[in-house]
Amino acid sequence: METFQRLESEVRGYCRSWPVVFDKALGSHVYDENGKPYLDFFAGAGSLNYGHNDPELKSKLIDYLTDDKIVHSLDAYSASKREFLKTFEEIILKPRGLDYKVQFPGPAGNNAVEAALKLARKITGRQTIINFTNGFHGMTLGALAVTGNSMKRGGAGVPLDHVATMPFDNYLDGQTPDFLWLRTLLEDSGSGLDAPAAVIVETIQGEGGINTASAEWLRGLADLCKEYGILLIADDIQMGCGRTGNFFSFEEAGIVPDIVTLSKSISGYGLPMALTLFKREHDVWGPGEHNGTFRGFNPAMVTGAETLRRFWSDDSFAEATKAKGELIAGRLQEIAAEHPETGAHVRGRGMARGLAFEQEGLADSVSAEAFERGLLLETSGPEDEVIKLLPPLTATEEELITGLDIIADSARAAVKQSQAS
Amino acid sequence: METFQRLESEVRGYCRSWPVVFDKALGSHVYDENGKPYLDFFAGAGSLNYGHNDPELKSKLIDYLTDDKIVHSLDAYSASKREFLKTFEEIILKPRGLDYKVQFPGPAGNNAVEAALKLARKITGRQTIINFTNGFHGMTLGALAVTGNSMKRGGAGVPLDHVATMPFDNYLDGQTPDFLWLRTLLEDSGSGLDAPAAVIVETIQGEGGINTASAEWLRGLADLCKEYGILLIADDIQMGCGRTGNFFSFEEAGIVPDIVTLSKSISGYGLPMALTLFKREHDVWGPGEHNGTFRGFNPAMVTGAETLRRFWSDDSFAEATKAKGELIAGRLQEIAAEHPETGAHVRGRGMARGLAFEQEGLADSVSAEAFERGLLLETSGPEDEVIKLLPPLTATEEELITGLDIIADSARAAVKQSQAS
Amino acid sequence: METFQRLESEVRGYCRSWPVVFDKALGSHVYDENGKPYLDFFAGAGSLNYGHNDPELKSKLIDYLTDDKIVHSLDAYSASKREFLKTFEEIILKPRGLDYKVQFPGPAGNNAVEAALKLARKITGRQTIINFTNGFHGMTLGALAVTGNSMKRGGAGVPLDHVATMPFDNYLDGQTPDFLWLRTLLEDSGSGLDAPAAVIVETIQGEGGINTASAEWLRGLADLCKEYGILLIADDIQMGCGRTGNFFSFEEAGIVPDIVTLSKSISGYGLPMALTLFKREHDVWGPGEHNGTFRGFNPAMVTGAETLRRFWSDDSFAEATKAKGELIAGRLQEIAAEHPETGAHVRGRGMARGLAFEQEGLADSVSAEAFERGLLLETSGPEDEVIKLLPPLTATEEELITGLDIIADSARAAVKQSQAS
Amino acid sequence: METFQRLESEVRGYCRSWPVVFDKALGSHVYDENGKPYLDFFAGAGSLNYGHNDPELKSKLIDYLTDDKIVHSLDAYSASKREFLKTFEEIILKPRGLDYKVQFPGPAGNNAVEAALKLARKITGRQTIINFTNGFHGMTLGALAVTGNSMKRGGAGVPLDHVATMPFDNYLDGQTPDFLWLRTLLEDSGSGLDAPAAVIVETIQGEGGINTASAEWLRGLADLCKEYGILLIADDIQMGCGRTGNFFSFEEAGIVPDIVTLSKSISGYGLPMALTLFKREHDVWGPGEHNGTFRGFNPAMVTGAETLRRFWSDDSFAEATKAKGELIAGRLQEIAAEHPETGAHVRGRGMARGLAFEQEGLADSVSAEAFERGLLLETSGPEDEVIKLLPPLTATEEELITGLDIIADSARAAVKQSQAS
Repeated sequence: METFQRLESEVRGYCRSWPVVFDKALGSHVYDENGKPYLDFFAGAGSLNYGHNDPELKSKLIDYLTDDKIVHSLDAYSASKREFLKTFEEIILKPRGLDYKVQFPGPAGNNAVEAALKLARKITGRQTIINFTNGFHGMTLGALAVTGNSMKRGGAGVPLDHVATMPFDNYLDGQTPDFLWLRTLLEDSGSGLDAPAAVIVETIQGEGGINTASAEWLRGLADLCKEYGILLIADDIQMGCGRTGNFFSFEEAGIVPDIVTLSKSISGYGLPMALTLFKREHDVWGPGEHNGTFRGFNPAMVTGAETLRRFWSDDSFAEATKAKGELIAGRLQEIAAEHPETGAHVRGRGMARGLAFEQEGLADSVSAEAFERGLLLETSGPEDEVIKLLPPLTATEEELITGLDIIADSARAAVKQSQAS
Repeated sequence: METFQRLESEVRGYCRSWPVVFDKALGSHVYDENGKPYLDFFAGAGSLNYGHNDPELKSKLIDYLTDDKIVHSLDAYSASKREFLKTFEEIILKPRGLDYKVQFPGPAGNNAVEAALKLARKITGRQTIINFTNGFHGMTLGALAVTGNSMKRGGAGVPLDHVATMPFDNYLDGQTPDFLWLRTLLEDSGSGLDAPAAVIVETIQGEGGINTASAEWLRGLADLCKEYGILLIADDIQMGCGRTGNFFSFEEAGIVPDIVTLSKSISGYGLPMALTLFKREHDVWGPGEHNGTFRGFNPAMVTGAETLRRFWSDDSFAEATKAKGELIAGRLQEIAAEHPETGAHVRGRGMARGLAFEQEGLADSVSAEAFERGLLLETSGPEDEVIKLLPPLTATEEELITGLDIIADSARAAVKQSQAS
Repeated sequence: METFQRLESEVRGYCRSWPVVFDKALGSHVYDENGKPYLDFFAGAGSLNYGHNDPELKSKLIDYLTDDKIVHSLDAYSASKREFLKTFEEIILKPRGLDYKVQFPGPAGNNAVEAALKLARKITGRQTIINFTNGFHGMTLGALAVTGNSMKRGGAGVPLDHVATMPFDNYLDGQTPDFLWLRTLLEDSGSGLDAPAAVIVETIQGEGGINTASAEWLRGLADLCKEYGILLIADDIQMGCGRTGNFFSFEEAGIVPDIVTLSKSISGYGLPMALTLFKREHDVWGPGEHNGTFRGFNPAMVTGAETLRRFWSDDSFAEATKAKGELIAGRLQEIAAEHPETGAHVRGRGMARGLAFEQEGLADSVSAEAFERGLLLETSGPEDEVIKLLPPLTATEEELITGLDIIADSARAAVKQSQAS
Repeated sequence: METFQRLESEVRGYCRSWPVVFDKALGSHVYDENGKPYLDFFAGAGSLNYGHNDPELKSKLIDYLTDDKIVHSLDAYSASKREFLKTFEEIILKPRGLDYKVQFPGPAGNNAVEAALKLARKITGRQTIINFTNGFHGMTLGALAVTGNSMKRGGAGVPLDHVATMPFDNYLDGQTPDFLWLRTLLEDSGSGLDAPAAVIVETIQGEGGINTASAEWLRGLADLCKEYGILLIADDIQMGCGRTGNFFSFEEAGIVPDIVTLSKSISGYGLPMALTLFKREHDVWGPGEHNGTFRGFNPAMVTGAETLRRFWSDDSFAEATKAKGELIAGRLQEIAAEHPETGAHVRGRGMARGLAFEQEGLADSVSAEAFERGLLLETSGPEDEVIKLLPPLTATEEELITGLDIIADSARAAVKQSQAS
C-alpha cells in the first residue's frame, strides 16, 4: 500500500474507504490479494451490471484477442463495430421504435456528454444548457459545467458557464408545482434566461443521492422541451443498460429523448466504451468535427454485442431486475423502519436503490461497517447521506439477501455507535 | 458498409479515406475482412507504437483475463495497478531522475489534459493557459479550448476562453526571435495578458502537421516558465512512449516539465489508458476532486507494465527508433528532392515524420494513392498538407522500406496526376 | 424630423412614440418647438424627480458657470465635490445612521452598477452575482449580464455570464414561499450554485413593470444575505432619490444594503451623475482601480448638493410624496375598476406607480392615447403591458389629477377601440 | 481635505498627485481655492481641448439654461439634438466624405465603446475582438476586456473574454514586420484564433504611454481588416476632436473606420457626452436595443454644436494645432537631449505628446516637480514612465513655452535628485 501512497496522486478516492488491494473478481464478488472475498454492491459505480468477468463474455473476449482481431481502429470500419451496430439496432433500437444514429464519442462517459452538449448547441445555435440540482455528468470542462457538486466544480479553476440550473423532481418543498420556475422563465421575455439549447437530465441521480424522477415528471419535462423547442438529453450513463429494469431508464416514462448518452455497462465487461445516440434528423455533425483516440476500442464492442444478445433478446432480464429491485426495496424499508430516529428512508427504482439518513455521518458509518463485514457499498448525495446500492443485476437472490442482511447489521452497529458517542 | 451509413453518425472520419472493413491486425499490418493486408504507417494515431497485438503482451493480457483478475476497479487499489506504478517508477521515473506522482485521470488523452489544466489552475489560482498555434489536445471543452483547429473549435458551440495562443517554434518568418512576443507580453503590465497558470506544449505537433520544436526552443520555453512562475505542461500523448526515440519526447531537450500527459501507447496494446504526471510538490488535489469511471482499467495496466519491462529496461529500443527515424528521414528527403516543384520538405524527429507539400491537395492524393497500394497513411496540418508517418516503432527495416517505396510511388503518381489535370 | 432619420441611428426609441421635437421644459411640463405643452408623467425615466429646470437649482447652476468655477475635474479635489460630500453626509447619511463611503464611478447609472459588481467580486473573491427576474441595471456588459430583458441581452453579442437569476417577489404563483429556491440552493453543496459574491436588487422594478418588493421580502433577502455571507447591492438608480417617498427606497424595509447605486435624479437637474455607496469596511478599492473621464462633473454636484438642502432637510418632502402616491394609487384603482375585463391592476409604491393590463397591447394604446391628449407616459414590463407613472415628485395635486384624468380618458378610448377591432 | 478622506472611496486617484482643492478654471489655467493658478497640461485627460470655460461656449450654455430649454430628454427628439446633428453633418462628416450614422450611446466614453463592440458583434455574428497591447478603452466590463492595463483588468473580478491581443505599432523589436503575427493567425485555420468581429484601435495610445501608430501601420491595419472581413473600430475618444490636428486622428492616415467612438472633448466644455459613429450600412440596431438615461443631455449638444462651428468651420484650427505640436515636440527633444543618461525620448503627434524615460520612477518625479512649479501634468504608460502632455489646443504659444520651461526645470530637478539618492 505504501507504493500507492508514494506514487499515486492524492486525488485517489475509493481506496481510502476500502484499504485493501483487490486482485480477482467473479460474478458478484471481488477478492483482495489475500483471497478474502467481498460482496460487491457497488459494481464499478454501475459499470458492472452483469457482474465481474462473466464467463461467456470472457470467452468471447479471449477468442477475439486470441484470433488477433483488430483491437484499436479509431473510427475506421471494423467487423466488430458493424456487428455491434447491427446488434444494437436489432435488439435495442428497433423493438423500441427508436430511430437513433450512433456516435462513438470516446471511451468515457464524459466524452458522450461532451459530444451531446456540442451537438445540442450546434443544432440549435444556442448556448445555454438547463441542468438539474445534484446532477452529475462528468469531470471534463463541458460536463463539469452541468454537474452540481460544488467540490468537483471548484476543481475546474475557471468559471463554469452557459448553464442554468433547475430544481430536480421533488427538490423543493413538495408543494411547488413541477416546472413552475422553468416554465415561468421560458414564458417571460424579461426573465433573463437565454433561450436554452437543451435540457440534460438523469432519470435517477446516482451520484446526487439516488434522487428519482417520477415518470410523470419526466413526461412533463419532455412536453415542456417540445413546447419550447428545447432538446432533451437523457444522460443514461449510470442508470441505463438495465439498471432500472428496462434497457433505457426512461422507457418507463414513455418518453423519447432527442439525445441519449450511454457508457459504464454498455460493454458489459467493464471495458471503456461510450455512445451518444440521437434522432436521425439531429445528425448534423461534420466528418471529424468531434474525434478521439479510443473511440474505436473493438474488444468492448465485441463484449457489448454479446451482452445485448445474452441479456436483452427478450424481457426476462428486465423483469428479473425489477423483481430483485422490489426485494431490495422491501428489505431496505424494513431497515429504515428499524431506525426511525435516524430519518432513514428508501429511494430509487429497479436495482438502483438508496437508503438515505437524515442523521449526519450515519451513511458513511454504515458503509464502513459493511466493508468490515465484507460488503462493498458506496455513499452518495451532497453530504454523503445516502448508502447507494448498485449490485450487479446478475446477483442472485441469495447474494442480495446476504448483502441486505449485512446492511441491516451494519445499520444497527452504526446507529448504536452513534448513540454511544 | 451500408450498416455504418445507416447507423453511425456522420461524424465518422477515417473510414471515409479507407473504405474497407478491417478485421485482423498483427505487428505492422492490418487486414480487411477479405484478408487483404495493409501496411500500417498510422499505428492508431500513435496508440500502437509497439504494433498490433504483440504476442507477448497478448499472452499477458489473456492470462490476466483467464485468471479472472479484476478488470474494472475505479480508483480502488489493485494488484495490477501497484505493479504498474512500481514498474513505471523503476523503469521510467527513477532512471530519469523524475520525482513525479501519477494520476489516473480517465481512459482518454483528453482526460489527462483536462486534469492537467485543472491542476495547473488550482496550483496557481490563475486561469489563463498559454497554448500554441496548431496545438492539438483533445475534444472535451477544456482540452478543445487549447486546441487550434478552427473546424474542431467551431464544434464547441460556446466560446473557448481562458487561453492565450502563442507562435510555436518556427511559426513566423524565421526571423522573429523565439518568445519575443510572449516575453514582451509577460514583462509589460499593460499588455493585456492576464498572468498565466501554465503553458501547454507538444514537442512535435502531430495533428498540427509534424511541426517540430527544437531542443533549444523547448529549453527557452522552460526557462521562460521558470522565470515567470508559469507551470510547464508537456502534452506527450502522441509524441511520448518512445515515438521520438526516448520515452518522453522532451528528454532530448533536457527539460523537466511540471506536468506531463501520457495516453495512446501507454498501455502498449491499444487499450484505453491515460496518465497525468506532475512534480511531487504539485500534488494539491483533494481526494475525489477529479474522478471518472474508467480510470482503473486494469488490463491496460497489465500490458502497460509489461511494455515497459520489454521495451524500456535499457536504451536499445530508443536507439533503434532513432536509427529507423534517420532511415525514414533520409528516404523522405529523396522523395522530396524528386519533386522540388511541389515545395515538398521533410519534418519531424525519431519515428514521427512528415512530408509536407506546398502544393495544395497533394498530400491527400499521395495518401489516397498509398492506400491503393496497401499503405495506411494519415495527413495532418491545418490544410491537410502533410503526410504523416507514424509507423509502429517495432516495424522492421524491410517494412519501413516497403512503406517508403510505396510513398515514393504514390508521390510520383499523385504529382503526375496533378500535372495532368 | 428628417434630420433624425437621416443621421441618427435606428437604435433611437422614445422618439418613435412621441414624434415631436421638444424644445423647452419647466416644472411638470415639456414643450415642443411649436410651443405645445405636454404634461410629463415620465420625468426622464426618473431623472427629473424635482421637475424640469427648477428655478432655484437653475440659479445655482448658472451662478456656478458664470463664476468660472471648475466644470470638469476628473477625481481631483474640488470645492464643489467637498460641498456635495459634506451635504450628502449631513442630510442623507448621518440622519439615517449610514456609515457609507462614496465613489464617483462615472456619469451614468451603468457606471455605478459596474463599480458595484466589481467591488462585490473583489471583496468576496467570488464571481457569481444573483439577480432577479425582470431586473434592469444597464447596458454595459457587466450591468447587462444582470439585466433580464431578452432583447437587450441579445444585443450583447457574447454570452452574459457569472449570474444566477432568482424569482423576484411575487414572481411565481403566489404560493411558493419566498426564497425557497434560493435558500435551498445555498444550503445544498450539490446544487450547482457557485458561492455568490452578491445579490443585486431593485426594491421596485421600474423597467420590469413596476414590480414591487414588499418590505418583508426585502428583509428576508437581507437576512438571507447576512446568513450566507453574500453582499446585498440595492440598485436605487430609478427608485432612490425620493421616488417612493423616503430618500432611499429601501428605508421603509429597514434594511441596510452593503452597496447602493444612485444616479438619475441625484443631481436634481437631469445632469449626468452617479454614485456608488458602500459600507466603510468594504472600501477595498486600490487608487485608480476603477476610473472614468466624467466622474468629476462639478455642476452636477452643485445642483445635487442644493437639491439635498432644499428637499431633504426634513421629512416634509417625503411625506408629501407618499401622500401624492396615495392619490395616484386611488385614482388608478378607479380606472382599473372601470375596465375589469382588461385585467387591469395597480402596482407600485410612492410616486412609482403602474397600471398593468392583462389584455395584450392595451398599455401601448393607452400610452398613445395619452400622448394625443398631451400626456407623456411610458410603458414597461416584459410585454410593455404596464403604463408606468413617474411624475415629478414636485408635481402639484392639480397636475396629478389632470394627468390621471387624461389616463382615465385614454384608457376608455383604448378599451373602446380594442373592442371595436 | 479631511472631508475627502472621510467620505470618498480609496479609489480616488488624481487627487493623490495634486493635493489641493480646485475651485475655478479659465482657459489654460485652473485655480485652487486659495486662488493659486496652475497651468493645465492635462486638460481633463483630453476632455478640455478647447480649454476651461471658453467664454463663447459658456455664453451659449448659460443662454440655453436661462431660456429653460430642455436639459434631459433621453432619446426623444429635441431641437438642440437636431441642431447638433446637422452641424456635425455639415462641418465634420460632409467635408470628409463620411457617410456615418450617429448613435448617442450614453454620456461616457465607455458607453460609446460598449455600443461599438455590441454593434460589431451583431453585424458579424462573431465574438472575438482584436485589441492592442497597452490599449485603453474604459472600465465597464466590455470595454475593460479590450483594455491592457493589468491593475485595471484585475478589478473586473471575472475573466475578461472574447478578446485576442495583438502587438501595437512598434511594440516588438522594431524588426518584426507589421501584422506578421496577426496575418499569420488569420491565414492559418489551425491557429486557434476564432474569426474576429472587429479590431479596436487608438491611433495614439494615451493611457498606454503616447504610443503612436504610424499612418502606414494604420493603413496596413485597415487593409488587413478589409481583406479578412473584420470591422475596424477607431477609438478616438482621447485622440479625436482635434487633439492630433485634424478632427479625427485617423484622417492623416487616409483610412475610414467602420465604427468610430468619440467622447471627452465632443461637447467642447467638459460636459458628459459620447458618440458612436458607423457607416450607414452598419446601422443594424433595433429600436431600444441599447439605451441609457443620459444619452440625451442637451446642454452638451448645444456647446458641442457651437464648438464645431467655432473651431472646425475651416482648417485653421487644425493647422494651428499641428504647428503648436511641432513647437512642443521640438522643446521636448531638447529636454530629452539634456538627459541622455535617462533614456529620455519624445513620442506623439499633434498636441498629444509624451516624454518617456527609461529610468524608472523619473516620470513621476518630473510630474511632481512640475506640480510644485504650478504645472499639471499626468504620467502614463504601463510603468508610468511617460510624462503626458495634453495641453488645451487653445493654449497660446506663451503658455506652451511657459509649461515646457517648467518641464525642463522639473526634469533637471528630478534627474539631480535621482542622482543624489
